[in-house]
Amino acid sequence: MFSYVPPIDDYRFLLTEVLGFDRAMAEMGKEVDADLAAAVLEEAGRMCADRLHPLNRHGDEEGSRLVDGLVKTPEGFADAWRDFAAAGWASLSADPAYGGQGLPFILQLWLDEMLAATNLSFGLFPGLTRGACEAIMAHASDFLKATYLPPMVSGEWTGAMALTESGAGTDLALLKTKAAPDADGSYAITGQKIFISSGDHDFGGNIVHLVLARLPDAPAGVKGISLFLVPKYLPDADGGFTIRNSMSVGALEKKMGIHAQPTCVMNYDGATGWLVGEPHKGLAAMFTMMNAERLMVGIQGLGIAGASYQQAAGYAKERLQGRSADGARGPVTIIEHADVRRMLLNIRAFVEAGRALAGWTALQLDRAHHHPDAAERARADALVALLTPVVKAAFTDFGFESAVQAQQVFGGHGYIREWGMEQYVRDARIAQIYEGTNGVQAMDLVGRKLPMAGGAVVEGFFALVEMDLAAAEGLNIAAKTREALALLRGVTASLRGAGTEAAGAAAVDYLRLFALVSMGWMWTRMAAAAQGDAPLHGAKRAVADYFAQRMLPQAQGLAVGIAAGEATIMALGAEAF
Amino acid sequence: MFSYVPPIDDYRFLLTEVLGFDRAMAEMGKEVDADLAAAVLEEAGRMCADRLHPLNRHGDEEGSRLVDGLVKTPEGFADAWRDFAAAGWASLSADPAYGGQGLPFILQLWLDEMLAATNLSFGLFPGLTRGACEAIMAHASDFLKATYLPPMVSGEWTGAMALTESGAGTDLALLKTKAAPDADGSYAITGQKIFISSGDHDFGGNIVHLVLARLPDAPAGVKGISLFLVPKYLPDADGGFTIRNSMSVGALEKKMGIHAQPTCVMNYDGATGWLVGEPHKGLAAMFTMMNAERLMVGIQGLGIAGASYQQAAGYAKERLQGRSADGARGPVTIIEHADVRRMLLNIRAFVEAGRALAGWTALQLDRAHHHPDAAERARADALVALLTPVVKAAFTDFGFESAVQAQQVFGGHGYIREWGMEQYVRDARIAQIYEGTNGVQAMDLVGRKLPMAGGAVVEGFFALVEMDLAAAEGLNIAAKTREALALLRGVTASLRGAGTEAAGAAAVDYLRLFALVSMGWMWTRMAAAAQGDAPLHGAKRAVADYFAQRMLPQAQGLAVGIAAGEATIMALGAEAF
Repeated sequence: MFSYVPPIDDYRFLLTEVLGFDRAMAEMGKEVDADLAAAVLEEAGRMCADRLHPLNRHGDEEGSRLVDGLVKTPEGFADAWRDFAAAGWASLSADPAYGGQGLPFILQLWLDEMLAATNLSFGLFPGLTRGACEAIMAHASDFLKATYLPPMVSGEWTGAMALTESGAGTDLALLKTKAAPDADGSYAITGQKIFISSGDHDFGGNIVHLVLARLPDAPAGVKGISLFLVPKYLPDADGGFTIRNSMSVGALEKKMGIHAQPTCVMNYDGATGWLVGEPHKGLAAMFTMMNAERLMVGIQGLGIAGASYQQAAGYAKERLQGRSADGARGPVTIIEHADVRRMLLNIRAFVEAGRALAGWTALQLDRAHHHPDAAERARADALVALLTPVVKAAFTDFGFESAVQAQQVFGGHGYIREWGMEQYVRDARIAQIYEGTNGVQAMDLVGRKLPMAGGAVVEGFFALVEMDLAAAEGLNIAAKTREALALLRGVTASLRGAGTEAAGAAAVDYLRLFALVSMGWMWTRMAAAAQGDAPLHGAKRAVADYFAQRMLPQAQGLAVGIAAGEATIMALGAEAF
Repeated sequence: MFSYVPPIDDYRFLLTEVLGFDRAMAEMGKEVDADLAAAVLEEAGRMCADRLHPLNRHGDEEGSRLVDGLVKTPEGFADAWRDFAAAGWASLSADPAYGGQGLPFILQLWLDEMLAATNLSFGLFPGLTRGACEAIMAHASDFLKATYLPPMVSGEWTGAMALTESGAGTDLALLKTKAAPDADGSYAITGQKIFISSGDHDFGGNIVHLVLARLPDAPAGVKGISLFLVPKYLPDADGGFTIRNSMSVGALEKKMGIHAQPTCVMNYDGATGWLVGEPHKGLAAMFTMMNAERLMVGIQGLGIAGASYQQAAGYAKERLQGRSADGARGPVTIIEHADVRRMLLNIRAFVEAGRALAGWTALQLDRAHHHPDAAERARADALVALLTPVVKAAFTDFGFESAVQAQQVFGGHGYIREWGMEQYVRDARIAQIYEGTNGVQAMDLVGRKLPMAGGAVVEGFFALVEMDLAAAEGLNIAAKTREALALLRGVTASLRGAGTEAAGAAAVDYLRLFALVSMGWMWTRMAAAAQGDAPLHGAKRAVADYFAQRMLPQAQGLAVGIAAGEATIMALGAEAF
């Protein structure tokens, strides 16, 4: 296995030449510039490459295990976690009021890329903790915030999100876990949750579960769900947290991948918890943090794609098989073969455009929180809402496809465990499923996001894209993206007011078309910025051209398929399947 | 996990209403009709569903292990193998001269589908044995044939193919295993082979390895490779096979999937072997059986796709989540949701067209061997050669994508092992790699098959397709397939005389376009035949329409991408990757 090279040059290119990072930070009154940002990313990248990447294969082999009812993570994980937290990586973007460093979300998202690239199982620990912190910060009482946030922000404690039950996954309306009020203002939580990432571990410290449950008087359905903070250890009389709460790990899920990550079946047997936010408003509280969480999951797909690209490119430059195109030399390194390059370019064209698009979206999230002008904040917030399902679903779909292609470069050597390529495929697969399946994301885009503000948000986004394409007129990538944008606008109009079946029939293909246009937009911006002689500039122009010629043409078939409507999908009776 | 339902109704529909099985058999003078064929398939299906399907999950969990240097297959496999052989399933299509039943290859291929659908790891044992038998039959001496074929045909013994070495995979020119002649006419084989499926097992009986190696005076490259028969047990003086040959299992490969299949690293330490065919002509001897083997691997992808469809459809008809499209009912079974149907229809539109195309190709293979007219035999043989890489690569690509989509229908439950969906994904992945990676198949199609007879073979195929499309005029699927065929003809013309780089840049997308047209052709034939009132007829027409409207449109983007040529792929220097 080759070492991981953090994409610092690409981050720097995006910060300084494409995304206007310094200007954006200045607008928000943040005292951080591209040099500082790149230095932070470089340091983070070193930690990921040197500490987490070497643990990844081993973590997969050993896996997390349940020993006497407690989780034992693979050798090295607990030490790595403590070092990770001590170096401040757990608190990078957290609120300084609770000990965070308040750095912009774009740095957090790119750190998440490198975490996923080097060790997805590990990366879920800080990811879930951050999600839990955000929900607590936005909705919990001051007392809960003061008690739980500082040690969670520092990484002394971790967090977990307990939503899913065996009968309630996508449809949380069906969940059954109960919360009974106690006289002291706390609640007794009873029920079983499944698929709980980071539900338990052996890193030391408390584990703070946010659990969805129903109060006794709760209305049926999603309007009767409340959110509770349920810690593994309860406070004792001395202010310590030493009393085991009535919750336990029923089992570890046996999964296709992310073996080092302890995905728990959790049993809450009258566990003590406290209400977070209003009664019956738990789902809304949970959705507070959904945008950031879903962007994080999207970047997981991208991170694994980037890592698998590095491995495949490294292998292709060493592996000798076959003869040169003119037949004169042999054996040659397989990087000489056009089909191997095609696979690598497919991955790279996604990874670099996705990295730029993620960065752009993260900057909008920063604007949504920190811009001084309320109208700008609202505008940025709407753009993030629009792009979030696209980033989550498209990046994880392309991410998985990328890992599969990178594995293919290795031939039979990709199918055996030795090189770690099959682990990338197994690990990447989860990101298409959790945090809302990609089908759910697509329905979110078509059913909820397109209609925002009567369609004005998506039209505003298209206008933004159009402007950048116009500014880059003359570039092939700009012309091709404009053609694809026209197709996208056409099907967007046709989906206005679509019913549930029409939306569902179109959604996944629509999201992919939307993502292709968005990536074409980013390739246009990158190519326009990369008109110099530097090798990085030349490579950007070449890959932009590849994307325009080989990947964007998929837009046509997608648009035709979407236009076909739902009749052909709903024609068969359920019994005929 | 749901039980497996063999697709006997679909086989019967294809035999009687689409492929003209009875007429084809009569032409070849074979005394088998559709009724008998369906009865054989039904019996085979029962064995697969009742014996092999229940072993599949357990086989994955236990895996094959190496115990004291010998392979121990999972509990139940050895018994299943003996019953499989005793019932005659190992000898279905084999030459009656050696104890085979001489049934047509189309039945063999569809048996292979059901084997892959229920237990791919198991199915590789008869598959490899059959391949080895074919090479021996075509090239070995009468003595070797008389000695080895009868027990291999009956399934008392099994076969294995030992080609790959760690430095020689796709490029067999690089292989280093040596064969030194002994005075008695045998050879001492020395070298290490990797990725050897069914290299050892505990079923009892001999294991006959066909090993590629170099003679002392061999020319360099592929023209210096010879083929040797190397049995695990050598003949003793009493006519038994009791003497252990100097060959051993060095290790079992740790793989992503097919865990029950013992994929061996084999060490030959001066092992005794006998030359099969002419010296230095081993590669040609090996390629004798390539068409049938590659068709078998193609159908493996299809088999897993069909099995995963059944599981996903079964789950979708039971799993309750979400509300009906009008919001009035909830929770509803997820088969009501359009996006779930879309995923299922994607799989089904591939599986049923692929099953038809595989059947058509298998009938051509039967014609190539058994038709009384030499010109017809040659014509059929050329069509098989043309279609073989398409079936191998496209079916395994669509097969893998199908398994992934079926897994997606299960949401989080698809990612954990319980339902077996992630096993389908892991198992299906190998078929895209072994027996020549799908990139190699695509290069075979573009570089070797398109130029056959100066392009007359592919033109003849297009003419065949065109004729069937014309006969079905008025059907939407026929009209859409004609459009896609026009695109395919255009890029086929543009690839005439293409250099290696141009061919490599186009090959994978070209093969997929070719497969889409071929499936459109089969959907046209099926829809044309399915104009009755029976539910199966109605379903065929509906799925044909889905294929036309939602899958065939991909053809456009593929044609545009292919037309872009190689410049954009070769633009970057190797160091820039």
